[in-house]
Amino acid sequence: MSVLAQTKSAISANAIERLLQATEADMAKVNAMILARADSHVEMVPELARYLIESGGKRLRPMLTVAAASLFGGGTGSAINFAAAVEFMHNATLLHDDVVDESDMRRGKPAARMVWGNQASVLVGDFLLGQAFMMMVETKDIEALGVLAAAAAAMAEGEVFQLAKTGDLETSAADYAEVIRAKTATLFEAACEVGAMAGGADEAGRKALKAYGLELGNAFQLVDDVLDYRGESGTLGKNTGDDLREGKMTLPVILALAEGTEAEQATISAALGDVDATPAQVAEIVAIFERYNTLSRTLDKANAHARAAREALSVLPPSDMATLLADVVEFSVLRAY
Amino acid sequence: MSVLAQTKSAISANAIERLLQATEADMAKVNAMILARADSHVEMVPELARYLIESGGKRLRPMLTVAAASLFGGGTGSAINFAAAVEFMHNATLLHDDVVDESDMRRGKPAARMVWGNQASVLVGDFLLGQAFMMMVETKDIEALGVLAAAAAAMAEGEVFQLAKTGDLETSAADYAEVIRAKTATLFEAACEVGAMAGGADEAGRKALKAYGLELGNAFQLVDDVLDYRGESGTLGKNTGDDLREGKMTLPVILALAEGTEAEQATISAALGDVDATPAQVAEIVAIFERYNTLSRTLDKANAHARAAREALSVLPPSDMATLLADVVEFSVLRAY
Repeated sequence: MSVLAQTKSAISANAIERLLQATEADMAKVNAMILARADSHVEMVPELARYLIESGGKRLRPMLTVAAASLFGGGTGSAINFAAAVEFMHNATLLHDDVVDESDMRRGKPAARMVWGNQASVLVGDFLLGQAFMMMVETKDIEALGVLAAAAAAMAEGEVFQLAKTGDLETSAADYAEVIRAKTATLFEAACEVGAMAGGADEAGRKALKAYGLELGNAFQLVDDVLDYRGESGTLGKNTGDDLREGKMTLPVILALAEGTEAEQATISAALGDVDATPAQVAEIVAIFERYNTLSRTLDKANAHARAAREALSVLPPSDMATLLADVVEFSVLRAY
Repeated sequence: MSVLAQTKSAISANAIERLLQATEADMAKVNAMILARADSHVEMVPELARYLIESGGKRLRPMLTVAAASLFGGGTGSAINFAAAVEFMHNATLLHDDVVDESDMRRGKPAARMVWGNQASVLVGDFLLGQAFMMMVETKDIEALGVLAAAAAAMAEGEVFQLAKTGDLETSAADYAEVIRAKTATLFEAACEVGAMAGGADEAGRKALKAYGLELGNAFQLVDDVLDYRGESGTLGKNTGDDLREGKMTLPVILALAEGTEAEQATISAALGDVDATPAQVAEIVAIFERYNTLSRTLDKANAHARAAREALSVLPPSDMATLLADVVEFSVLRAY
């Protein structure tokens, strides 16, 4: 890692660390609610749910919800429920995604499905989704509930679209943009929007946070898709090239297929969707990516979304939290450098 | 089939037929909403959803919702949304259950997962659940939404409990009662309760319909579990003995294991959870059931729930619809004779 990268990395880690500190009191309540609502007399439910929930995720989404609420004064406490609900929706999605992707690992540990099986993963995901809606209902805020219900449907729709496009060499950059918006950015968008609503934001404030979340989420997923090829193995708790082996049509692949020679296209398509693709094959494909700069061009796109996220915040009155949220955007992109 | 059974069967078919006629105008709206909300520009979503939705289910749950609403005057139209939402919740559950149970058939056709795969079935189920909550949100009735959110969580919890008990020879009749209440009766209960709420019921009316739905649902599942062993093959669009092959600990099995000889216990446990259990093995086990009357004792239990369902209605002022709902209970039990 270069000195510049190390410096940037320190800054960005610091932004997340500062967000953690700034939301500490609220997040203690969120975490207590998460643990309580993952409970059940059916033992397999809390066992499986806590295995995933306590596996060291950053809880970025619920932090964004309570941070967004605090920007506008914090509101009446609904933000706690929405934050916990957002984390449950995220975890339900992870459980189902790991089944769909047949993933063995998640956050550096065996995926829940490897321990409890696909069946329990599907059902505990459903349970978490039901509990998420119950936490939302307690706020009695039907409008914010509508935002999250729409996000739930859109996320699933995006996942189906991604599945339909798996291994499809004709997938376009526009298709990819739609997939990442639906499967990832929508929940960031909703997490920030309901946070603002719960905090008592006016229409302009709500709109600003919604746009911030959407752009941040897009940047976040683009960086994830770069890290899948570039990350030192283990950075994401996954193996380098897993997206390739799963046949995921991410932007680095789409751009390389569009511009590569026939031989290069053949090299990529031979490995796409092959669970047994070797590290050597992945390295060869990354070399093709480097030839056409598809990883750095994907990061350029992430940077454009990051800029848009920061701009969305510019309509808000200056505050420490607004500055911090802008710094968090840095983190989402800098982790790729 | 005996003459008595044929007569009874005609009566009960007539009750469902009459419910269909009595709810025809509302159900036309429900069906239109179901079709519209199963749509998506992601082609696989409506293809898979409609394959299941149009596969000839009775739509008993949404009929109960609109029937319950009409008992109290019909309300402002929220019942249509709740009915469609209930059917979506039911269909989402079917999609996930078929994945969990590795079922090949559903309603006499290949299960959706056999056509589109497990992955799409999981994700389209998630999509339907998200759409269900969006339809509920449109009613702005947060209290009724809470009833259905609680049902969604309880259903998933019940399914996990059933999964944990799969093939567990120690499963008690109380465990079984909890499973069928959670996985099946809860949605009948919620369907009737939110129908009553949407129709403008007072507290007593809401409570009556809630109790009616719960008892009807329990009776319904007990009969299903008998039919799994007794049905002429194809009655449920499944094969006789499928529950046995899936290792499901239903009441006929639990009672036989508790009372049978060691040899009989061994015969049952050898076939439990064996996907390749032969029709001859199933017949041998049904013979054990007959020896201890476990199928007819399961039906006795169904009848007790059916009586409780009818009694729950007795607090309501007499009406054609109340009589019809009482007749519908007959159907749920008579289909086993």
